[in-house]
Amino acid sequence: MSGKIVALCGGIGGAKLALGLAEVVAPEDLTIFVNTGDDFEHLGLHISPDVDTVLYTLAGLANPTLGWGLAGETWTFMDALTRLGGEDWFRLGDGDLATHVQRTWRLRAGDSLTAITADLSRALGIGPAIAPMSDDAVRTVLDTENGRLEFQDYFVRRRAAPVVRAIAYEGAEEAAVSPAVLAALADPALEQIIVCPSNPWLSVAPLLAIPGLRQALTESGRPIVAVSPLVGGQAVKGPTAKLMTELGLAVTARAIAGFYGPLIHGHVLDTSHAHEAPAIVSDGYVVEVMPTLMTDLPSKAALARRVLAFGRRLAQSRLA
Amino acid sequence: MSGKIVALCGGIGGAKLALGLAEVVAPEDLTIFVNTGDDFEHLGLHISPDVDTVLYTLAGLANPTLGWGLAGETWTFMDALTRLGGEDWFRLGDGDLATHVQRTWRLRAGDSLTAITADLSRALGIGPAIAPMSDDAVRTVLDTENGRLEFQDYFVRRRAAPVVRAIAYEGAEEAAVSPAVLAALADPALEQIIVCPSNPWLSVAPLLAIPGLRQALTESGRPIVAVSPLVGGQAVKGPTAKLMTELGLAVTARAIAGFYGPLIHGHVLDTSHAHEAPAIVSDGYVVEVMPTLMTDLPSKAALARRVLAFGRRLAQSRLA
Repeated sequence: MSGKIVALCGGIGGAKLALGLAEVVAPEDLTIFVNTGDDFEHLGLHISPDVDTVLYTLAGLANPTLGWGLAGETWTFMDALTRLGGEDWFRLGDGDLATHVQRTWRLRAGDSLTAITADLSRALGIGPAIAPMSDDAVRTVLDTENGRLEFQDYFVRRRAAPVVRAIAYEGAEEAAVSPAVLAALADPALEQIIVCPSNPWLSVAPLLAIPGLRQALTESGRPIVAVSPLVGGQAVKGPTAKLMTELGLAVTARAIAGFYGPLIHGHVLDTSHAHEAPAIVSDGYVVEVMPTLMTDLPSKAALARRVLAFGRRLAQSRLA
Repeated sequence: MSGKIVALCGGIGGAKLALGLAEVVAPEDLTIFVNTGDDFEHLGLHISPDVDTVLYTLAGLANPTLGWGLAGETWTFMDALTRLGGEDWFRLGDGDLATHVQRTWRLRAGDSLTAITADLSRALGIGPAIAPMSDDAVRTVLDTENGRLEFQDYFVRRRAAPVVRAIAYEGAEEAAVSPAVLAALADPALEQIIVCPSNPWLSVAPLLAIPGLRQALTESGRPIVAVSPLVGGQAVKGPTAKLMTELGLAVTARAIAGFYGPLIHGHVLDTSHAHEAPAIVSDGYVVEVMPTLMTDLPSKAALARRVLAFGRRLAQSRLA
């Protein structure tokens, strides 16, 4: 008899494991907390890139070629916007726009991001609960060689090229945790918490920067397992390795474990990082090594099963 | 040597003559005032149906099949919105959305509808000036057998089916006239004003309901010529005839002339309404009869030429 599962995730890498978890956990037993530090207002639309990536991935609608957005997307809007001289550096697909328009007008009507996300999720037939980390604005901002950059300016417009000196999560200190997040962490049936292999600094840190969320994670008393996003000393996708170097860190699973600190109890390393296991164990963490590359649905489900088994063992050892 | 021309118009029928005028008048000499009484807020977007019809028509981008919207349109947004359970009774094409999104965020940023329309027009390569009648909200509202209905609810959602008892133009009394409209009417080079064959009650009346606009039209001292939208006792498109009957009027060009009253000096009737000419003349108006059906660009340009010649004769007789 397994308990309920909470997963923390950001965009693409995290969504892959979230999909694996959705394959092997009963829908009513899985809640996915999603980073909203990447959210931004563009052309008057509230865009929640990580929430949408998780929604589309779990709905089976994700674009397999682009790695973001919807499958079967068309681009008539962007072409027309370009013709009108509008800002076209952030690509908005025609189908994707429906999500942004629907979300934005409901936000303006006073509905919460949590409620809207739950409705979008229901409309798309998604079983597990998807909860944005907060209904308040938390914005990841980068101090770079080109000055202060908002996340999408850094990430999309400048393709993560500028050297990053520091990262801030503006609004996090004052942000209230989403009620859906708090409820999941307070559920007596909660068994374990999994941090998906998203970029720790860009995708997971915004969640942890909210004092109430960090506190609720700790106070849940459940084991927290983080899956390292590094495979062969690189991120599968995205600028994790580049960013770590710029922040003066070695590109190692140990550096990631050190970043998370005592909040995390267990670390999952890819087999290509097995050599790091002894050092991380010596730092005081429990470590498991397994293949973490998720290339298809079976490999996502397999990783989910192994990570869950690890967390379950941690939970049992804590009860013992 | 001809002077400057002002045209008042609403949607489809009016836009046809506006296009004809654009064919035969130098771009810098033509200003088109457009009804915004049909404007509405939908899904958080500010939609200006008549302004867009005129923009798309003059840009050569109008959808020839639908009679509204853009040529080569795609509908991925609507399909996605339906999937999300969103409100899908008002069809928004993917390319058309770019106009609404661009307009809406600029309005929220504090720009005026007049300035935004001018920029959209410029981006689409349109020569003549297109001026929304007002930057303030004027809303056509219908008192019907089904109660009070906002314009798009009546016109699109209910396909103009409910019987109309009365029409109001909410906000018109307080609305300021667009500065572009006032400037065009105050221009000493102005020669004549043409009321395009749009629905008088739904498309032209909102303009005339703004006291400052009606006053500026009168004070311009220039002849105003109205082209009747009736051909063979019917409107070419739209509910004009049905609406006239519901308002207790005969479906005649004379009833339309009577509605406009002394504001209009000259009336253009379609040849199919030639029999009405004597009665309208006896009412005190100048009348010309000509074929008004516009089936292609040459027939639009031909009608524009003949209407302009009529207005020019009126202007000369007033000077004499």
